[in-house]
Amino acid sequence: MNADKIPDIIIGRLPVYLRALQRMSDKGLKTTSSQELGEHVGISAAQIRKDISQFGEFGKQGTGYSIPYLMDKLREILKVNRIWELVIVGAGDMGHAIARYQGFSNRGFQVVMIFDNDSSKIGQKAGGFTIEDAAKMVERIRAARVKMAMITVPAPAAQSVADKLVQAGVKAILNYAPTSLNVPKGVHVQYIDPSTHLQRMTYYLD
Amino acid sequence: MNADKIPDIIIGRLPVYLRALQRMSDKGLKTTSSQELGEHVGISAAQIRKDISQFGEFGKQGTGYSIPYLMDKLREILKVNRIWELVIVGAGDMGHAIARYQGFSNRGFQVVMIFDNDSSKIGQKAGGFTIEDAAKMVERIRAARVKMAMITVPAPAAQSVADKLVQAGVKAILNYAPTSLNVPKGVHVQYIDPSTHLQRMTYYLD
Repeated sequence: MNADKIPDIIIGRLPVYLRALQRMSDKGLKTTSSQELGEHVGISAAQIRKDISQFGEFGKQGTGYSIPYLMDKLREILKVNRIWELVIVGAGDMGHAIARYQGFSNRGFQVVMIFDNDSSKIGQKAGGFTIEDAAKMVERIRAARVKMAMITVPAPAAQSVADKLVQAGVKAILNYAPTSLNVPKGVHVQYIDPSTHLQRMTYYLD
Repeated sequence: MNADKIPDIIIGRLPVYLRALQRMSDKGLKTTSSQELGEHVGISAAQIRKDISQFGEFGKQGTGYSIPYLMDKLREILKVNRIWELVIVGAGDMGHAIARYQGFSNRGFQVVMIFDNDSSKIGQKAGGFTIEDAAKMVERIRAARVKMAMITVPAPAAQSVADKLVQAGVKAILNYAPTSLNVPKGVHVQYIDPSTHLQRMTYYLD
């Protein structure tokens, strides 16, 4: 296996498989098949088998996959068999919603800080966190060696926040601001913008 | 042009181009090139030219693209040269944040209703909306002929909400619940789950 050669589109499906396996496990299921998993995620059984086989032989002909074993393997591949610390930049509605979100802890993530540059927000609470001054963001993130961040500031401010995050040593950014970001090679960006997701669907509607 | 034959991956990039063009337009720019647009969105100029040429000849050799013209064309292709009404199901933190979100109106969307099944929430406000009883969702959505919805309920409730939305005539669902949905052919689903986006990036981190 050469990890560098596995297409990103396959990597992108692994978290979806892991999430579906977690839901099966929560229901008390112990084993599954590529057919059953495929029905849960809307991907063909053949594609699932092909994707998973990129990383090794995790299932058995006839008996399928052990759910706990496959979950362990996927967590290991995705490196979420540990907890990654995250910071949030932007304490607006979305920043607050994420700071209060309970869904990260069993997926490999933990929010540790939230920043804003609005003096009326600094010192206030968001979820269990005290909102910190964005002016101290670079030193705070660097000192804590946090590698992941979520940007929830308005679009015009997003690039300068991203630049500071990169300066602070952040290597992965989940951007909620509705704008594309320029980052150096080696820094990863994913985007969450409801309007682009919606526009991708309206194309198909009448 | 045969719309049915254009790969969904190309359709998925058009909203990103449109968003970048909007940002350029907001800055007062009138024309752009595939090179410049490519730098904004992190996609090669050749890919952009190829994607756009699927739909017609919208640029001129040497002078590039007129930003307002290309925006008009992309809005027409994506069918967001009109306003699509949306409902939100689930008035938790995320539902509230979306109900208050100001970024939909200039992207082709307008929230018109928000539902919850929690009697302590029904009748309360979320953004400018009064939270309505989810028990009346099917008839309310059908009567208003709304075709798009966002699901912001907990994962275990998401499939039954999706079933009701389909029953009500909804054709496109943006799902914020961290679970895959099964919907009939002809109904489109997109997913927003921060943990899957984050897990796609941890793969590449040390």
